[in-house]
Amino acid sequence: MISLIPVAGIGEVRPGDVLADLIAAAVPDLQAGDIVVVTQKVVSKAENRLVPVDADDPLSHKQLVLDEAARVVRKRGDLIITETKHGFVCANSGVDLSNVELGYAALLPLDSDRSARRIRDGLRARLGIEVGVIVSDTFGRPWRMGLTDVAIGVAGVAAVVDLRGTFDAQGRELQVTEVAVADELASAAELVMGKASGIPVAIVRGADPTWLRESSVRAEIIRDPSEDLFR
Amino acid sequence: MISLIPVAGIGEVRPGDVLADLIAAAVPDLQAGDIVVVTQKVVSKAENRLVPVDADDPLSHKQLVLDEAARVVRKRGDLIITETKHGFVCANSGVDLSNVELGYAALLPLDSDRSARRIRDGLRARLGIEVGVIVSDTFGRPWRMGLTDVAIGVAGVAAVVDLRGTFDAQGRELQVTEVAVADELASAAELVMGKASGIPVAIVRGADPTWLRESSVRAEIIRDPSEDLFR
Repeated sequence: MISLIPVAGIGEVRPGDVLADLIAAAVPDLQAGDIVVVTQKVVSKAENRLVPVDADDPLSHKQLVLDEAARVVRKRGDLIITETKHGFVCANSGVDLSNVELGYAALLPLDSDRSARRIRDGLRARLGIEVGVIVSDTFGRPWRMGLTDVAIGVAGVAAVVDLRGTFDAQGRELQVTEVAVADELASAAELVMGKASGIPVAIVRGADPTWLRESSVRAEIIRDPSEDLFR
Repeated sequence: MISLIPVAGIGEVRPGDVLADLIAAAVPDLQAGDIVVVTQKVVSKAENRLVPVDADDPLSHKQLVLDEAARVVRKRGDLIITETKHGFVCANSGVDLSNVELGYAALLPLDSDRSARRIRDGLRARLGIEVGVIVSDTFGRPWRMGLTDVAIGVAGVAAVVDLRGTFDAQGRELQVTEVAVADELASAAELVMGKASGIPVAIVRGADPTWLRESSVRAEIIRDPSEDLFR
């Protein structure tokens, strides 16, 4: 069994805050093997990835979207799908105004795998336990309505679990070989966080111990553009 | 808190089996408000969506993929991404050989929302309780490596939760307005099912009661092709 536990009491996060300290204080019973899922928004705030925007001028926000993009993938009306400098394909280069102080926009962390490692290392130093950390964000996708949370950074937890060489109950090698476990964990955690309730952290307890290993979203999840049929 | 509970003891499912009976027997403590996630594979078996293939002739399988497709979206080497007659965009029209008896392939259910309703109605009749049901399948996606489980049918649980008119902690209307809760629930359930372990059902306990309503993947999740930037 896996438990998805929302973490209340993190409060408003400000530039310079140390997330590992805030999480350690809010989750006194954090256990070795837990996976801590932290939303991008509070990571961007702690890392001061906030930039002023003119709330009355939508173009100031649009310019940020282009500045953060390596490439515009699709554009229709107000909707801009970009490939960010990190390699993520998402709306508005991940630049977001929700749950940010009025007059500011939040950019994605410069390196969200590193952000995850910093939180993991901080929790290890403070609590002496080994946990996995996922930085999550909310992305749309083609073909399907609605958004889901995905992993944009990981530390100590597999981005992708490779089942090649695993056999089904009939002894046939599995066709589905690579499961994006970090994305599924991010989606699971979103179910107890909600968008409006201001809960930026959740704990996944009971994860398969084999998922807990060094990994990176950049290395394992971002598909090489040359192998991608949709850009 | 949400609990993800794997259901052991379903056993091998055969054409004509009544999934509601198997689930009711395997989960004696099923509770009102639980969400039952059932993998497509056992739904397809129960509904006898099995067709013989020549295990030594890969072309017999490829022909099925084309028969099940409304349209080929992309093709490279052995990889065929199709739009199925239901409107799903996925590899191989969802035709799958894993965890199926040798010499057979499993097709997607004809109408997986209806499949979910049949299970939900059966559980209501047997146990006198109201639960949500999701039929899940494992799909790839552009731009990101690895596969995740998504909902291909729902009954009694929202495919998408619309947060329009919801405000963030700063009183600003949320930019992220439509959350694909059914897909997040399917991904969460996958975490306790695994691909190789032969657990085809999981229970999500502790879901937000507002998610429990009549819904349909076909109506709420499949994006209208005219509004889709990627087909």
